[in-house]
Amino acid sequence: MPLVRISLMKGRPDNSGQKVGEVVYQAMLDTINMPANDHFQIITEHDSDTLSYDPAYLDIQRTPGIIVIQITLNEGRTVELKKLLYQTIAERLHSGLDVRREAIFISLVEVKKENGSFGNGIAQYA
Amino acid sequence: MPLVRISLMKGRPDNSGQKVGEVVYQAMLDTINMPANDHFQIITEHDSDTLSYDPAYLDIQRTPGIIVIQITLNEGRTVELKKLLYQTIAERLHSGLDVRREAIFISLVEVKKENGSFGNGIAQYA
Amino acid sequence: MPLVRISLMKGRPDNSGQKVGEVVYQAMLDTINMPANDHFQIITEHDSDTLSYDPAYLDIQRTPGIIVIQITLNEGRTVELKKLLYQTIAERLHSGLDVRREAIFISLVEVKKENGSFGNGIAQYA
Repeated sequence: MPLVRISLMKGRPDNSGQKVGEVVYQAMLDTINMPANDHFQIITEHDSDTLSYDPAYLDIQRTPGIIVIQITLNEGRTVELKKLLYQTIAERLHSGLDVRREAIFISLVEVKKENGSFGNGIAQYA
Repeated sequence: MPLVRISLMKGRPDNSGQKVGEVVYQAMLDTINMPANDHFQIITEHDSDTLSYDPAYLDIQRTPGIIVIQITLNEGRTVELKKLLYQTIAERLHSGLDVRREAIFISLVEVKKENGSFGNGIAQYA
Repeated sequence: MPLVRISLMKGRPDNSGQKVGEVVYQAMLDTINMPANDHFQIITEHDSDTLSYDPAYLDIQRTPGIIVIQITLNEGRTVELKKLLYQTIAERLHSGLDVRREAIFISLVEVKKENGSFGNGIAQYA
């Protein structure tokens, strides 16, 4: 049940949000035991008036290239798996899409496995 | 404290998002003991570049008619009540608005009862 | 790790969303022991079709001036601190930006401290 919300600035190359989303999807698949094809994402594009960030919090230099990724997912992954997920997303967005590692802000929201329905009004994971 | 976020494609009939929201509100009222008039919803419209979904995950056939509903609500509902909520939303969106049952994706995020303020800077449920 | 989502109506004065965000940031700083500069916010603007609210729930009179603030933050704040946060946000939005206190809807989503990465693929708070 990952539901992924990606927020980034307008004016990037075409379908940039979708490309970021593909990388995030693949990283989840390869690190946190997410089932294949559990791929649901909502992307919003912003300008500097509607996406605010601190340019230096924790001594990380951020630019308007910031990408905010919030993932609602089933609870239970270990801290180590979460760390691996962050690292994998950051490395692949950098190597694959030339995103600065500093630009990648990730937030996880954990929910119970019965908290999702993928269609037909059924709690498929309950 | 349900706060409902509904994401769906542009180009539907007028006020489609609101109509979906009304059905979701009424379903919560009739199934999960939500107080009457606790009705707060945020709707975002997307195109295929900004709302991504798998067309067949869990053998459910999805089309651009997909509707993603994420509800932040107070914790404590049983699994049975959550299942009833999913079923009721799906049945009523289908019968009332002709939405395909397969199109309805629901995600619940549970929070403590002191985690909301409905106005005036007060935690009304704490 | 507060990630703040602010939803409000279009047609307000310039940068109104950002000004609201600044007040929310400062209120978190002054009440819930948030580190300075932990400032990340996503603002969405709506019309009456895409931001729905009840005009009188809990006997609070709401108008299109409603502002919905949802904050994802690390778990562990006491009920008293949360109450102080709500009160401080409401008082300052009222005194500083002339927002009606009744208009301020706040929702908190709490997460574990390892659930965020502020950049570089690292879980800085884990």
